[in-house]
Amino acid sequence: MPKVEFRPSQRAAQVPPQTVLLDAARQAGVEIESSCGGEGTCGQCLVRVVNGEVDSRSLGTLPQAAIAEGYVLACATHIRQEDLIVEVPPQAELKGGKFASENEPHLVRQELLPKQWEFDPLAVKWRLTVVPPRLESGISDLDRLTRAIQHDWGKQPVEYSLLGIRKLAHTLRAAEGQVTATIVRDSGRLHVINIEPGDTTLRHYALAIDVGTTTVAIQLIDLAAAQIVAARSDYNDQITCGLDVISRINYARDPSRLEELRKRVLDTINRLIHQIAKSHGVDPHEISNAAVSGNTVMTHLLLGLNPEYLRLAPYAPTLLHVPYLRDAEIGIDINPQAWIHFSPSVGSYVGGDITAGILCTDLATATEDINLFIDIGTNGEIVVGNQSFLMACACSAGPAFEGGGIECGMRASTGAIEKVWVDEATGAARYSTVGNVRPRGLCGSGMIDLVAGLFLTGWIDPAGKFNRVRPCSAIRIEGRRASYTVAPAGESAGGKPIVITETDIENIIRTKASIYSACALMLHQVGLDFTDLCHIYIAGGFGRFLDLENATVIGLVPDLPREKFHYIGNASLMGSYMVVVSQDFRQRQLELARRMTYFELNTDPAYMEQYTGALFLPHTDPARFPSVKAQPGV
Amino acid sequence: MPKVEFRPSQRAAQVPPQTVLLDAARQAGVEIESSCGGEGTCGQCLVRVVNGEVDSRSLGTLPQAAIAEGYVLACATHIRQEDLIVEVPPQAELKGGKFASENEPHLVRQELLPKQWEFDPLAVKWRLTVVPPRLESGISDLDRLTRAIQHDWGKQPVEYSLLGIRKLAHTLRAAEGQVTATIVRDSGRLHVINIEPGDTTLRHYALAIDVGTTTVAIQLIDLAAAQIVAARSDYNDQITCGLDVISRINYARDPSRLEELRKRVLDTINRLIHQIAKSHGVDPHEISNAAVSGNTVMTHLLLGLNPEYLRLAPYAPTLLHVPYLRDAEIGIDINPQAWIHFSPSVGSYVGGDITAGILCTDLATATEDINLFIDIGTNGEIVVGNQSFLMACACSAGPAFEGGGIECGMRASTGAIEKVWVDEATGAARYSTVGNVRPRGLCGSGMIDLVAGLFLTGWIDPAGKFNRVRPCSAIRIEGRRASYTVAPAGESAGGKPIVITETDIENIIRTKASIYSACALMLHQVGLDFTDLCHIYIAGGFGRFLDLENATVIGLVPDLPREKFHYIGNASLMGSYMVVVSQDFRQRQLELARRMTYFELNTDPAYMEQYTGALFLPHTDPARFPSVKAQPGV
Repeated sequence: MPKVEFRPSQRAAQVPPQTVLLDAARQAGVEIESSCGGEGTCGQCLVRVVNGEVDSRSLGTLPQAAIAEGYVLACATHIRQEDLIVEVPPQAELKGGKFASENEPHLVRQELLPKQWEFDPLAVKWRLTVVPPRLESGISDLDRLTRAIQHDWGKQPVEYSLLGIRKLAHTLRAAEGQVTATIVRDSGRLHVINIEPGDTTLRHYALAIDVGTTTVAIQLIDLAAAQIVAARSDYNDQITCGLDVISRINYARDPSRLEELRKRVLDTINRLIHQIAKSHGVDPHEISNAAVSGNTVMTHLLLGLNPEYLRLAPYAPTLLHVPYLRDAEIGIDINPQAWIHFSPSVGSYVGGDITAGILCTDLATATEDINLFIDIGTNGEIVVGNQSFLMACACSAGPAFEGGGIECGMRASTGAIEKVWVDEATGAARYSTVGNVRPRGLCGSGMIDLVAGLFLTGWIDPAGKFNRVRPCSAIRIEGRRASYTVAPAGESAGGKPIVITETDIENIIRTKASIYSACALMLHQVGLDFTDLCHIYIAGGFGRFLDLENATVIGLVPDLPREKFHYIGNASLMGSYMVVVSQDFRQRQLELARRMTYFELNTDPAYMEQYTGALFLPHTDPARFPSVKAQPGV
Repeated sequence: MPKVEFRPSQRAAQVPPQTVLLDAARQAGVEIESSCGGEGTCGQCLVRVVNGEVDSRSLGTLPQAAIAEGYVLACATHIRQEDLIVEVPPQAELKGGKFASENEPHLVRQELLPKQWEFDPLAVKWRLTVVPPRLESGISDLDRLTRAIQHDWGKQPVEYSLLGIRKLAHTLRAAEGQVTATIVRDSGRLHVINIEPGDTTLRHYALAIDVGTTTVAIQLIDLAAAQIVAARSDYNDQITCGLDVISRINYARDPSRLEELRKRVLDTINRLIHQIAKSHGVDPHEISNAAVSGNTVMTHLLLGLNPEYLRLAPYAPTLLHVPYLRDAEIGIDINPQAWIHFSPSVGSYVGGDITAGILCTDLATATEDINLFIDIGTNGEIVVGNQSFLMACACSAGPAFEGGGIECGMRASTGAIEKVWVDEATGAARYSTVGNVRPRGLCGSGMIDLVAGLFLTGWIDPAGKFNRVRPCSAIRIEGRRASYTVAPAGESAGGKPIVITETDIENIIRTKASIYSACALMLHQVGLDFTDLCHIYIAGGFGRFLDLENATVIGLVPDLPREKFHYIGNASLMGSYMVVVSQDFRQRQLELARRMTYFELNTDPAYMEQYTGALFLPHTDPARFPSVKAQPGV
């Protein structure tokens, strides 16, 4: 098999001919970002073939000069029979996104997280002493093990898997009866999911998984040390099959495509697990607890359930509450005997990511204060309530703030422009990037800063159109295309300018309008107003530096005292962490899901009215945003 | 792919080049017997290639004339690229063994079998009406199904498999909520293992499986009609890896060989299932109940459990009582969600075949009469007792009565000599065969008749040696080899004489001695004698016409009034039938297993003494067999 060596890392992989170069890179442990999902359109996976011949579909789309130097798109390039040497430009190699920052995996209110002494996962490790076999006793290995377990845990039924039983004879004899059992405690019975020789209680891991329409994030948790080891995220491999849940549902109509979608999201999850486990010396089989939170469509697709009926009236999902399933049935690369917890969904468009997300907020506490939770992903989901009532709704926001559908958009990983300041006089932008490296694109928080900055300084009008009167070197109008250069070609990592177009800004305005109007309508439905709110929690993958001032300026969030707002990042991931480490939180989540009422926006004609009103910066009714004072455009 | 046509049946299969011809025949539905397990030694799979070229290893072992005519051993012949026409001689094609006789699948006391109204398998089919989805209700398909089940079965927890859930949305809508659920009732909860649209309660099947060291037998049961549809048996594919349990344990020392043994017995079972299901129009997925009975070693091997510790003191098995396991973990080709019942074992050498077998006898009833159960397979197992006590032991009998290790031995399938009469004057044999066709070999009942006949007429002496004084055209002494011709070459189906050798007779005497002496010792241990016995049940795969008179003559069974004896055939298979159709019998079997005391023969020095005494016809102490009067050899 041909060997492919990647430089400068000198990592290499031997792969069969016809392998896609991007896959070869993944096998070699070289992670190259590809936000279009291997469609050959985003151009992020540009690499240079230094030595050897390849078959590349990408050649037609690249400049002649780049082709002459050996540049290809790794996703559109197949390996031939011969060895290759491939150079990976610094900007192509993925250095780990925001969620992967190991020093800062929380971003939620610490006091709400489970304490070490509350750690109580579904599967626990338990040390046992099993008596040795004796000729007279006439009992089997399994009986002796069961007796040892029942000695410690009481006379409840004990169940086993065949895989575990297969290792039993050897395991019991290897450590003279000193073994560690991994036990799932189900109501009234015990399930033994693993038996290991000796004391392995210090090697016990769990996984929190957030399956978003655009982004998948995972967290590895060391249960023995009661700490988060690391977090990682990547684009959901499904995005090549449609950007939002409706297009995924349409794509899944054919059974083989449903299976393809299932495999794609599983591949994403498993790739992240292998990366994170490998870099922390954890065997994936040592992970015997996992909690998955995703919206209802993502949950259906991960489980291979036909999502068709989610988009057809009466919008009945196959399931809202996923029963405990063995991982062997699901296919996540952890201990196949593990029981997977799925955060429960509330309706076809309010899913487990929301019942996980609100766990991190005061909505999960016994308070009379009325709180609002907004999760801005590809779908926007909103929950409002207190200890007496909980209402939820969903709107389709689109993936703009995660980088999707925006010309230079990207998620909050290394090189993303995360903060922007616009100079009032010149219209030029200053910015900072994740990792303080050369910029590669704009993440959600950068977009919000940019649009707010351009609006406040008068370089765009309330409709999001560029000022075509006052000259600005950053603004370029070419026929129907109008763009603003944030970072010129010379500054950027990819050698191309980083811009925002009028179309991008329209897209961002539509996204913020759908969120704001859904919040406004929902409050109206329960006879409340924004001013009745005590806390507003904003979750979503914008990046670390979501500027609330700027979010108010563009009208994404209401104009309220800033101390009421809390940006809590990936709340679905943190909620997954909470339920995987603690049965109490799991119970609390079930109760929250049971209490929550699902409100269908699409059947309410008032929604379109609210939405249209919000399609301006900050709103058609400026009285709603008294603190926002933009320079009039000249 | 080349096409192979078999004549005269004209069945054909398309198979890849390099396929073994015997496998091609099986794929075409042409069953060719191969008692050596494809080792190229038994010669039973002789076929003639009429058209086309093959690669055959068998050519060196066949006569030149046969090779010239195109004869090959199907097991030792590989297909090339081209089409073939193959003629299967009548004697090679398996017409179905004794157990496969569909008119006579019982062979046990009918009054002990479950009645139709006692049919109560672990998994039942249940018709349900599930309410349609409604917009307002906000409940999922799964919730609606659970409510329908709990409506009929009460508020117990209901569990599902992911495979079942995947079909749910479509299934509920296909028949407007009219569905049939297949439900396993576990203590305190219900497991839904299948959901089908409409009413499928009339298509519900179960499987009884007897896994013997030498022979595997299965029975297909129509649960809706409460009847046995058919039965079939074949040699266990493991026999090429060793004839008895000890040699299988030795073979399994290497993990890859343990896996090979597991695969071989699974292949045997699955081949039988596919044959029986196909010929009765049953989809294997319609089989959602199965009970397996096998000795402890066979059970370990089928489950892939290392049997090593069964032959090392203190002889502790990994398990005696197999917990319920999903078939998906085991790999039998029926509904993968089915829960498989394994008959419980009592000790390392008294297995589930015995706890299943005694269910067919009065040992399973509340009687004070003392009864004896003898199962003669490759191992001999003996149980004695009544309602107050049950004792069991095992001895290694060897596979002689199943055809193993006997030059012309075979199991009781078509062409087997099953009854023999020896003429006192000439020493010549008359015989009858299964199916009244030309003879192909000797099955157990034929061997017993033959040895008894030769002994009674003085053609062999009490030590089993041929009469070398009185001339007999059937006896042939060539150096160390002494043989007796039952059927001359001209009469036999294979064109070779069917003989029994002195070595065969020694083998048979050792087998009967091990059984008889184990019975005698066990009774002695509990202070009893053969005369204390009320009933003696003999189980085993001899064939239909086991002649008790002759079994007494050779000293296999004690010399007692003949009405006390009951030959009950494959009791393990019938016991499996009983537990798979009825939970009551399953409960009874558990209690029997719990009550049974295992007695270890090998550690008792008295056993060797008893055994040596029994190595004569009928015994060294003729007073034990007063009714046996042999002609003195001249």
